[in-house]
Amino acid sequence: MKIAVCPGSFDPPTNGHIDIIGRCAQRFESVIVAVVSNPGKSPLFSLDERLSLLRDSLSEHDNVDFVSFSGLLVEIAAERDVDIVIKGLRAGADFDYELQMAQMNAHVGSMETLFMPTSPRWGFVSSSLVKEVARLGGSVVDLVPLAVASALEEKLA
Amino acid sequence: MKIAVCPGSFDPPTNGHIDIIGRCAQRFESVIVAVVSNPGKSPLFSLDERLSLLRDSLSEHDNVDFVSFSGLLVEIAAERDVDIVIKGLRAGADFDYELQMAQMNAHVGSMETLFMPTSPRWGFVSSSLVKEVARLGGSVVDLVPLAVASALEEKLA
Amino acid sequence: MKIAVCPGSFDPPTNGHIDIIGRCAQRFESVIVAVVSNPGKSPLFSLDERLSLLRDSLSEHDNVDFVSFSGLLVEIAAERDVDIVIKGLRAGADFDYELQMAQMNAHVGSMETLFMPTSPRWGFVSSSLVKEVARLGGSVVDLVPLAVASALEEKLA
Amino acid sequence: MKIAVCPGSFDPPTNGHIDIIGRCAQRFESVIVAVVSNPGKSPLFSLDERLSLLRDSLSEHDNVDFVSFSGLLVEIAAERDVDIVIKGLRAGADFDYELQMAQMNAHVGSMETLFMPTSPRWGFVSSSLVKEVARLGGSVVDLVPLAVASALEEKLA
Amino acid sequence: MKIAVCPGSFDPPTNGHIDIIGRCAQRFESVIVAVVSNPGKSPLFSLDERLSLLRDSLSEHDNVDFVSFSGLLVEIAAERDVDIVIKGLRAGADFDYELQMAQMNAHVGSMETLFMPTSPRWGFVSSSLVKEVARLGGSVVDLVPLAVASALEEKLA
Amino acid sequence: MKIAVCPGSFDPPTNGHIDIIGRCAQRFESVIVAVVSNPGKSPLFSLDERLSLLRDSLSEHDNVDFVSFSGLLVEIAAERDVDIVIKGLRAGADFDYELQMAQMNAHVGSMETLFMPTSPRWGFVSSSLVKEVARLGGSVVDLVPLAVASALEEKLA
Repeated sequence: MKIAVCPGSFDPPTNGHIDIIGRCAQRFESVIVAVVSNPGKSPLFSLDERLSLLRDSLSEHDNVDFVSFSGLLVEIAAERDVDIVIKGLRAGADFDYELQMAQMNAHVGSMETLFMPTSPRWGFVSSSLVKEVARLGGSVVDLVPLAVASALEEKLA
Repeated sequence: MKIAVCPGSFDPPTNGHIDIIGRCAQRFESVIVAVVSNPGKSPLFSLDERLSLLRDSLSEHDNVDFVSFSGLLVEIAAERDVDIVIKGLRAGADFDYELQMAQMNAHVGSMETLFMPTSPRWGFVSSSLVKEVARLGGSVVDLVPLAVASALEEKLA
Repeated sequence: MKIAVCPGSFDPPTNGHIDIIGRCAQRFESVIVAVVSNPGKSPLFSLDERLSLLRDSLSEHDNVDFVSFSGLLVEIAAERDVDIVIKGLRAGADFDYELQMAQMNAHVGSMETLFMPTSPRWGFVSSSLVKEVARLGGSVVDLVPLAVASALEEKLA
Repeated sequence: MKIAVCPGSFDPPTNGHIDIIGRCAQRFESVIVAVVSNPGKSPLFSLDERLSLLRDSLSEHDNVDFVSFSGLLVEIAAERDVDIVIKGLRAGADFDYELQMAQMNAHVGSMETLFMPTSPRWGFVSSSLVKEVARLGGSVVDLVPLAVASALEEKLA
Repeated sequence: MKIAVCPGSFDPPTNGHIDIIGRCAQRFESVIVAVVSNPGKSPLFSLDERLSLLRDSLSEHDNVDFVSFSGLLVEIAAERDVDIVIKGLRAGADFDYELQMAQMNAHVGSMETLFMPTSPRWGFVSSSLVKEVARLGGSVVDLVPLAVASALEEKLA
Repeated sequence: MKIAVCPGSFDPPTNGHIDIIGRCAQRFESVIVAVVSNPGKSPLFSLDERLSLLRDSLSEHDNVDFVSFSGLLVEIAAERDVDIVIKGLRAGADFDYELQMAQMNAHVGSMETLFMPTSPRWGFVSSSLVKEVARLGGSVVDLVPLAVASALEEKLA
């Protein structure tokens, strides 16, 4: 129980994501942030941009590593010899879907998924809602890391 | 607490929408029905058609006004000096998503969202389900205002 | 739309309750805080204690009034000529039960219930959880008004 | 697929219950209404009163039979050679609990549970809410059969 | 109560679907599996492929028939003189949406929908998740009929 | 991240509990099973009986320890220098309540709660439902450890 994988799209990373990964980094020997490269979802930020924003926002933790993956967590399990997945979970978020995914990952690849509650203050923050607000001209500067706020502004200008 | 905004896509308005707006009109001094003009969703009815159908269906209320907006409620708050949003909420509808939106709107623009329960008899009626049924040839005449039923028939003929 | 009723057991009032009532007081001409006197629930604090704690915690608002009632909101509607009920609602709280109550109150007494989202930071705070933690010796000083924290300490000593 | 069991506490029966049982009676050859006699719940109406109110309210259906049982549906399955259970389900009611019960009944006694959606107009009506409203002096005459309304009035006088 | 319709996209059929249909076949005189031909959803498998996979996976039941339909169950009701719809329901699946659909089908076409709980072991299996896992190279051989596993492999090769 | 606490009432332990604790034992250096001694709940099994049943059912794991506690997890944190709590979570179980508890424990005692999904086959099994079925004479022998099945039979004889 030394390495945990934190998977996600991170398009873009929010303060909620950074909070979850930071708390993992405090309790696990090392943490692998795994960014889905899935081209089917047409993300706003490219895989490289998302990796760069995550690295930038988590630079204070020296036990956090960053990889990309196609979407099947078993890949990472095999490469890195790790079988613990940590997912942040919001009050009112889609617990049922996440549980279904967790049971599927346990079936397909013997991965054990553990859900970590989001901090209450970030409970209403999601990547998609952040993008929607930013696109419409609203300020999201309190909801995402500084680097992400700048990147959003530039991307949507 | 004199003006309330009722935002929505209204693509098309249903009896559930009309019921909610009508009940607002009885209790607030004035009501602004705010129609999202968001072009990204490719609505069945154009913004003008939706505004016209709403005006037609709510003509008995003389304290109801109609505007369009890009999707960020703060716009309307600034223009109209109003900070109360009323959203209808169905039993079994996505309360969690609506709450997330409400908390985001409170954060971004100091808007206060209040949820008004849908009348039980319209609890299963939504714009998307009405369109789906109408597209497949089912009758929705009891579920939408008369003008909407006609417009649907014409549009899908 | 000038007077709103905020009903509840308030056994004891929490920061979540105070936040909701305070936001009502800012937007309605006057607010009636209605405390259920229902003896069947064997509350920790007596009706008088709860009324006193609420008065103490909301003393800065001069448009907030306090009453007790047996549990049927129609009583208050008749006495005070008011038909708007405001209920705070937490992410993940029992929306379905609250909606059922709202539809029943609309049926029985033509009361219109509006749900106001709890502030995210108080989303995990409820009277029963506060009592449970205090009973077990945990600190709840950040979660309730100062007067309530003192009263809890005294009551549970 | 000829006989269906409709189990419940029916303390008291509501219009929602009568609607569900009536719809079963139209589609199954015969229906057994099974009233839980469980003494642990201290019902408002005795087992005999509940059976009598159900018989009275469903007298128009001649293929509906009435029994009591201790709480384990397998009993009825053995006695009556029936393995289909029909449960009404409200929007926003506790689907998750009901599903757990259904899977347990399938495991323990090979009973197949089918859920029938409550009619939207009775979606907010439950026995416990009806009793609560009646106790507080509210009118429930539109929500329960006539015999039940009278029995409630008498019982709570 | 002799004929039941089991509607769905079945893109592709899973062990969960086969379990539900099989249990229906044991209790109803005959079962009609109704495959939505809706071209708007761009299925992975064509209508003919899905019909063929279902026939292949359910060959042991001689009281199961297979049809396609455009999406409005009333069509089938009229053609086949049947008004019972059976839908499988997973713990944590979208009960609220399914209930809305059921109430709409009752309104539009007097269809009675009954929900049958999925067997716990298939509770995390859905067509879309199966496709996603298979696309990413994971094994779904334990989650779908043999013919479906082969078809997926071929289709995604 | 070496020690995890698995708290619960375990009245009695079920196969679902044993599965969760066993999976923890495989991944953490040591696991503390913490049994709530709360006398307010009038458990069927005494604290000593529950501890004994757990020890018996988990004897194959030599890194699992057993303690009782009053209900506030901070106690254990202080005594044992541990701050990770693992809670099993069923599809359809009360995620919202568990999340509220987790956020409260994080606030009161800096405990980090992680949720581990129940194995699908035990998804419908809970202590209270097991007791209810056993009380009514149903067989629960497949749902609980052998020692628990015997103890239930004896206790309820």
